Amino acid sequence: MSNPRRIAVLGSTGSIGRQALDVIRQLPDRFEVVALAAGRNADLLAEQVAEFRPKYVTAEAESPRLADAVAATGATYLPVEQMAVAPEVDIPLVGTAGAAGLMPTLNALKAGRPVAIANKEVLVMAGHLVRQAMVSGGGELRPVDSEHSAIWQCLWGEEAHGIRRILLTASGGAFRDFDRAQLASVTAEQALNHPTWKMGAKITVDSATLMNKGMETIEAMWLFDVPMEKVEVVLHRESIVHSLVEFSDGSVKAQLGVPDMRLPIQLALAYPQRMPVPPMPALDVAAIGALHFGKPDIERFPCLRLAMQAGGLGGTYPAAMAAADEVAVERFLGGEIGFLDIPNVVEVVMEKHQSVADPELGAILEADARARAAARAVPAGAHA
Amino acid sequence: MSNPRRIAVLGSTGSIGRQALDVIRQLPDRFEVVALAAGRNADLLAEQVAEFRPKYVTAEAESPRLADAVAATGATYLPVEQMAVAPEVDIPLVGTAGAAGLMPTLNALKAGRPVAIANKEVLVMAGHLVRQAMVSGGGELRPVDSEHSAIWQCLWGEEAHGIRRILLTASGGAFRDFDRAQLASVTAEQALNHPTWKMGAKITVDSATLMNKGMETIEAMWLFDVPMEKVEVVLHRESIVHSLVEFSDGSVKAQLGVPDMRLPIQLALAYPQRMPVPPMPALDVAAIGALHFGKPDIERFPCLRLAMQAGGLGGTYPAAMAAADEVAVERFLGGEIGFLDIPNVVEVVMEKHQSVADPELGAILEADARARAAARAVPAGAHA
Repeated sequence: MSNPRRIAVLGSTGSIGRQALDVIRQLPDRFEVVALAAGRNADLLAEQVAEFRPKYVTAEAESPRLADAVAATGATYLPVEQMAVAPEVDIPLVGTAGAAGLMPTLNALKAGRPVAIANKEVLVMAGHLVRQAMVSGGGELRPVDSEHSAIWQCLWGEEAHGIRRILLTASGGAFRDFDRAQLASVTAEQALNHPTWKMGAKITVDSATLMNKGMETIEAMWLFDVPMEKVEVVLHRESIVHSLVEFSDGSVKAQLGVPDMRLPIQLALAYPQRMPVPPMPALDVAAIGALHFGKPDIERFPCLRLAMQAGGLGGTYPAAMAAADEVAVERFLGGEIGFLDIPNVVEVVMEKHQSVADPELGAILEADARARAAARAVPAGAHA
Repeated sequence: MSNPRRIAVLGSTGSIGRQALDVIRQLPDRFEVVALAAGRNADLLAEQVAEFRPKYVTAEAESPRLADAVAATGATYLPVEQMAVAPEVDIPLVGTAGAAGLMPTLNALKAGRPVAIANKEVLVMAGHLVRQAMVSGGGELRPVDSEHSAIWQCLWGEEAHGIRRILLTASGGAFRDFDRAQLASVTAEQALNHPTWKMGAKITVDSATLMNKGMETIEAMWLFDVPMEKVEVVLHRESIVHSLVEFSDGSVKAQLGVPDMRLPIQLALAYPQRMPVPPMPALDVAAIGALHFGKPDIERFPCLRLAMQAGGLGGTYPAAMAAADEVAVERFLGGEIGFLDIPNVVEVVMEKHQSVADPELGAILEADARARAAARAVPAGAHA
């Protein structure tokens, strides 16, 4: 047996980070935690440090318990940008939310490392920079998201130019059967109750508006180097088929599985091996009986259309779109605007947006800031 | 562009052979016919010789038209066993039915050739000999059957030992919803009317009894080097999901497509490339709406159980089982026995069969002959 793979878990106290640590905990012969980075939850980080005894630690917040744990284990503080390229790290898992994931991802790719990526914003805002870093440095991206992991698995052993279409599956969100009148009166409490996956508030609302699926189409473009014209979204309410790929000859491959994030996490860390994480329930398609597919309704869920448009337009449109959405979701959760105002805010901001072509990081962050300001100023009930 | 691949089509006048020639006809830059072998349909072979101008020809039957075509094109007669290893052949496609496919397959594999295999009996009767020839000669098998092609595609890029289960899909045959009383009164005419695929009489009846699916489980064992315990059959009436593979981590891959045999044929010939054969309709899962799965009923369709038992037992059981089935189907088509007598005949023959372990070809052919004689002697209405 080879040495354990040495993992840096960036965003270790978030949902993906905690599940990644669970995978590593169950497979101690295979994986070793050498670095942990977290944001504000310093107490949970302290527990993780005590358990996994990483070489490197970083946190946004301070806490006496964290300081004690670091002192007790002899860990060293190291900024998150450097963690991903520390010589002791084989694979960084980028599970940090937002722009915080960008520099570690770029650094690791430029250094020729594989990166297990669970951060959506990095690819949505700066997919072209990530792609450039990959090509120049020889690094590789291994998706952790269940949909993109499915596509990745379907592409193994296939020729790179052979993709005719990527079919991203979408559960349809919590309100897939609501009409517009019902959608107009959806509350934050209703939106936070996702049927299949347990996630944070922002991504749960994005799942309900289909903005999350829209962002996944942009991620798919950059992860698999295809134009937006080759990406489609298919409704699939069972969340069993995690996505499909159609090849040049009309053959379609799909990846299926029980909804358990530990499956794509272990694969991103263990590739090209597969490491069963116990207990792993087997998928029983005969017991499930039927798998349903349909077309998403972009009249009722305009965020999907807006995100795919932003991805197709490129430049700083995706960054502006994502920033506007973040503000709109915050305003919705705060009771300031309605559920159907979320796409309206995004559309108003996108229509006014002055895009910069092939933007550097500065232009992206500027577009982000401008879009946030614009999104805050859009009144409830406004239409593009 | 590279030189066209040079194909020997063995069984060129059969269903698979004709479709293979259609693929080659549509992709003349990619493929070239260098050898054609057929059985009794010498007139159709004559047409094929005139069109494709192969270097080598062979036929069981003689016809003046064939003699004329051979003379006009300057083709040379060559026995089918030698065709598969002729120096001008890159890939033999073994589309001959029955034991006739065995020697060409073994010869080509021993010579380190890839073999596009569409012959069921070769693997059912002599799978271990085929596997030995592969290993010793370094050849490879590329399945042409849609189910096995699906499994093959799902395995690309995967580790060989990673298979946890192979899930072969089955449409359920023409009578999947019949109860035993209805099955007892099924006529040959009813049995020959298969809902999805157009095939010969023997395979159509075998599809209705699920014997065909049972034989496919044995083929899967040998093609993918797994024991019968890892092979399952799943009912899937739409015939869209051609089969699935579950891997060691619980992840499942499936291959889907419109039911068109030209798709697996081009893949077996073009691998590792995919060659679109026009017109290639795209699969539209959203329009299909639902894909259904269930468990096969081995009470109503005992042939599935019998074939899987024979595959698990090994030795000469599969050869005896296949021979008994062939006789039973002939007797059913001749009106001599009923539809439910087919599994009864097979089971009676299997129960009496004295199996030979790790049989050579002689023992296999002897088991075949003994089983045929035994199957002819089983009276209608007999039970094991």
